[in-house]
Amino acid sequence: MYRTIEWLDDSNKVRLVDQLKLPLETDWIVTDSHERMAKAIKIMEIRGAPAIGAAAGMGMALAAIESKAISKDELITFLEKAAATLNTRPTAVNLTWATARMLGVAKATEGTAEEIVKVLIEEGKEIAEEDVCMCRSLGEHALEVIKPGYTIQTICNAGSLATVYWGTVGAVVRVAHEKYNGDIKVYAAETRPRQQGAKLTVYEFMEDGIDTTLITDGMIGTVFREGRVDCCVVGADRILRTGHVINKIGTYTMAITAKYHNIPFYSVAPISTVDMVTDPEDVVIEERDPDEIRVINGKPVTVPTAKVYNPAFDMTPPELVTAIITDKGVVKSPTEEKMRAMYDK
Amino acid sequence: MYRTIEWLDDSNKVRLVDQLKLPLETDWIVTDSHERMAKAIKIMEIRGAPAIGAAAGMGMALAAIESKAISKDELITFLEKAAATLNTRPTAVNLTWATARMLGVAKATEGTAEEIVKVLIEEGKEIAEEDVCMCRSLGEHALEVIKPGYTIQTICNAGSLATVYWGTVGAVVRVAHEKYNGDIKVYAAETRPRQQGAKLTVYEFMEDGIDTTLITDGMIGTVFREGRVDCCVVGADRILRTGHVINKIGTYTMAITAKYHNIPFYSVAPISTVDMVTDPEDVVIEERDPDEIRVINGKPVTVPTAKVYNPAFDMTPPELVTAIITDKGVVKSPTEEKMRAMYDK
Repeated sequence: MYRTIEWLDDSNKVRLVDQLKLPLETDWIVTDSHERMAKAIKIMEIRGAPAIGAAAGMGMALAAIESKAISKDELITFLEKAAATLNTRPTAVNLTWATARMLGVAKATEGTAEEIVKVLIEEGKEIAEEDVCMCRSLGEHALEVIKPGYTIQTICNAGSLATVYWGTVGAVVRVAHEKYNGDIKVYAAETRPRQQGAKLTVYEFMEDGIDTTLITDGMIGTVFREGRVDCCVVGADRILRTGHVINKIGTYTMAITAKYHNIPFYSVAPISTVDMVTDPEDVVIEERDPDEIRVINGKPVTVPTAKVYNPAFDMTPPELVTAIITDKGVVKSPTEEKMRAMYDK
Repeated sequence: MYRTIEWLDDSNKVRLVDQLKLPLETDWIVTDSHERMAKAIKIMEIRGAPAIGAAAGMGMALAAIESKAISKDELITFLEKAAATLNTRPTAVNLTWATARMLGVAKATEGTAEEIVKVLIEEGKEIAEEDVCMCRSLGEHALEVIKPGYTIQTICNAGSLATVYWGTVGAVVRVAHEKYNGDIKVYAAETRPRQQGAKLTVYEFMEDGIDTTLITDGMIGTVFREGRVDCCVVGADRILRTGHVINKIGTYTMAITAKYHNIPFYSVAPISTVDMVTDPEDVVIEERDPDEIRVINGKPVTVPTAKVYNPAFDMTPPELVTAIITDKGVVKSPTEEKMRAMYDK
């Protein structure tokens, strides 16, 4: 295991693993440019809500250095533009959360521009550190529902590659694997169109010696009916105060299929992923490039001009969610009241 | 539109379109060898239950010619071996049905080996002709449930490329399109791992000017929740007397998801696809090569040694099936009693 994203103190640059090249090649991007970070987020060289949060935080710190501002006002103006540049993906609440946090710190800090820049660098690193601790905590809390011998169905990648280190679903699997002497297995759905399950989840769990089986997204019905898994554990790009879970496309179909087979369905995410403001009907789901579906490995898999519908996420209503696992604890049968209590804890 | 498989009278060869090269190239296989036909079935140059039936029938006719038998006994012995050679896929009932039919005709026909060979050639062609008529009849019967303006969700390819000419789902869509002056739309699920939805269904409906949208298999939940489709119409590789539908992997997950959204779910197939003998628990589901999942367009999409589960079909129980549409009529809320009545009609 390695850190997905890391601040390099020696050079004040950020190093991140290029996830577009995994699993066949482990290559690194090293940059001192917040615009390069914005690009990395946009084209998904880095992805996964918590990792994006850290990337946005460190991106703001890079922007602070790049600004070469001589006054606090000048710095703030530059940072506000940088925040807009970094907000390249509409659904990921961690992006806006991290950029707003960095801006808030900049505004609240007294001192010269140079002093504020130093504070912002520490704050960017702190966002990453908090993620490491939070994820471990998620994994510990999940032991309440994950038992020895369980086989866990996942979708997409909410493993270490989606965060700074442990992962969210990754922490659940790894902490259980550690506590139960390896007696945990995983089924990973490949997660079309971008196949993060096949590319990333299988890669990182195999690296850690965890027994992992890859399936296509349409196989979940058969896998559930045959009793091959004990529960579903999925990440979340955003969780609403109502208990609605916004996650990678395919999650909602999985939740319906799990419910039909009475298989528990858990969503796991840091409390920072919870959006206490937005109503379910106001959520904007990002639609992505049709060629994500039409082209694989550089070649078309359909008529090149085929009409495509390509929503990147879906929303699972709380009646399909057995529990939400956060770093603050487990919310069973989530309701607005219970979510608020956990959020305010 | 063209015939997927055709007997060439001039040369006594069989011509079939190479479906592995579609949709980017329309290429033809022309053969006089039943072993080449067996290979075409096995590696899925031809696929789809009714097309496989015609291929097996014509394959038996080719074998009859190849045998160069001088006695009826010699011919029968050769044909029995050929039937075993052609039965390369365990789940497709049309394979065993067609080879058994050809063997039965051979045994029942009086005359010289040469005379019987001629009868078998006509019988092989007749199997194909019956499919053309049956499929048209399926499409006509489906008008009972398919209304003008409907958008139809499909999976895999049960279009013309799965049959000799019309298709099963293809006939439903095309007959409705013809009767309703083009007021029919289609959503095609890509159908991993082999992507027959993306490769074949999108291709053939676009060729016919039918408004078709491609989605990934995991998107069905969102498509259904957003009210984008009015019903699901899927083919069947086998339908049991109990109303269980065995079809391409992903069908069962789609049926569960349709039920959750109160969207009607129809399975359409010739009556020859109905297996009145086998019990649901005795159905053998073919498991295919793990590299169907691990490799796309010649390149790995996961760790090359990843463990994979790759069942080719799944089984949808009758409680999820709104109706079964056959060339003999529509069976709503299928039960063993209703299926038997339709079968004996």
